[in-house]
Amino acid sequence: MNSNNKAVVLLSGGIDSSTTLAVARKGGFELYALTIRYGQRHKIEIEAAGKIARALQVMRHEIVDINLSIFGGSALTSDIDVPKKRFNDSSDDIPVTYVPARNTIMLSMALGWAESIGARHIFIGVNAVDYSGYPDCRPDFIAAFEKLANLATRAGVEGHLFKIEAPLIDMTKAEIISLGTSLGLDYSLTHSCYDPLPEGFACGICDSCIIRRRGFVEAGIPDPAKYPAGVEKPDE
Amino acid sequence: MNSNNKAVVLLSGGIDSSTTLAVARKGGFELYALTIRYGQRHKIEIEAAGKIARALQVMRHEIVDINLSIFGGSALTSDIDVPKKRFNDSSDDIPVTYVPARNTIMLSMALGWAESIGARHIFIGVNAVDYSGYPDCRPDFIAAFEKLANLATRAGVEGHLFKIEAPLIDMTKAEIISLGTSLGLDYSLTHSCYDPLPEGFACGICDSCIIRRRGFVEAGIPDPAKYPAGVEKPDE
Repeated sequence: MNSNNKAVVLLSGGIDSSTTLAVARKGGFELYALTIRYGQRHKIEIEAAGKIARALQVMRHEIVDINLSIFGGSALTSDIDVPKKRFNDSSDDIPVTYVPARNTIMLSMALGWAESIGARHIFIGVNAVDYSGYPDCRPDFIAAFEKLANLATRAGVEGHLFKIEAPLIDMTKAEIISLGTSLGLDYSLTHSCYDPLPEGFACGICDSCIIRRRGFVEAGIPDPAKYPAGVEKPDE
Repeated sequence: MNSNNKAVVLLSGGIDSSTTLAVARKGGFELYALTIRYGQRHKIEIEAAGKIARALQVMRHEIVDINLSIFGGSALTSDIDVPKKRFNDSSDDIPVTYVPARNTIMLSMALGWAESIGARHIFIGVNAVDYSGYPDCRPDFIAAFEKLANLATRAGVEGHLFKIEAPLIDMTKAEIISLGTSLGLDYSLTHSCYDPLPEGFACGICDSCIIRRRGFVEAGIPDPAKYPAGVEKPDE
């Protein structure tokens, strides 16, 4: 089995994973997109992942359900209210939207699929700059997972080493948006909001919307997402 | 949250995981059993897990579905025939029943649940002696996962370190069966067969049945599993 140019790319449908898919495509990889549906409350992000996968002409797009809601402990998988903040709030705490072991679980699934199709490259859109509060977005975590992957698998044992690629890990959101735009990525297909409104509107005030909006402002690129009239603007 | 005596125990319903649960119970832990249903073809093992969980009075038993069948590549999750062998066959190759990244995925799920309930101990019934062909049953793998767990999680970052416990890792199947028997475990509740027959009979000739039967013979303990009349006996 030719394993040289296949890449499994974790794709949530948000800015980071979509940009990562565009980076992998630019790198000449045959793309296998993996979307993990983990009991989150909104399906819009999954639909966004499908649109992005089609737009970037992936070879396969698989959606795997995992019910992480049994874990509780996160606003994304349980009934805790998603926190709202003003545009310029900032915090270094680990946010309530943290999902226990989420990236470990997603990379594990990607590893299983990668081994079964003979892919050696696994791409994940983690970002240590804008998500400094998430322990599983740091370079040390990625390095530890890569080491694990090569101990955990038949392929690794046989010397066909896995490489965990996190091309965005040191980039700001603005840099990510600039990169994706330069690669021709259509960010109107992406979805970021933790708490979306009807008719395709994003709330504009959840953590994820705030990070997205700041990023577009800093990149000097218009955000194609739809926000309700009256949502606080960056310069107000 | 008191985190000192909670343990998440991966429980498949087979001999190893059931014995591991009995070891954790003996250790005084409050038990949280986690069964991962990963697209395997038989539900009997899941039912066995439920019986064992009840018998060992766990605090909670969660069953989480993950569809690993998209990965293909294994007789346990796809349509490849489960290999049959004679009783005394032996092989050091990685068996066809290997599921890519299985223990990585299962430990990741256990880690997420452990973090959310404040457990620090995660038990897994891996065994490097009888499963030397599986890369994710080796001590190096367990050590690498423990390191990863403490980088991947809020709890680990905050210094509440996880411990991955693999109490059976250096034991033979016979030693495991002797240990479980000494702890009062009722092995008639466990299920091992990869290819079970109707009416509660195990095939007696798949890899898993062969390993089980050899173990009971070597331990000098009668195997309570039901096998069809005429299946080759150890001493024949």
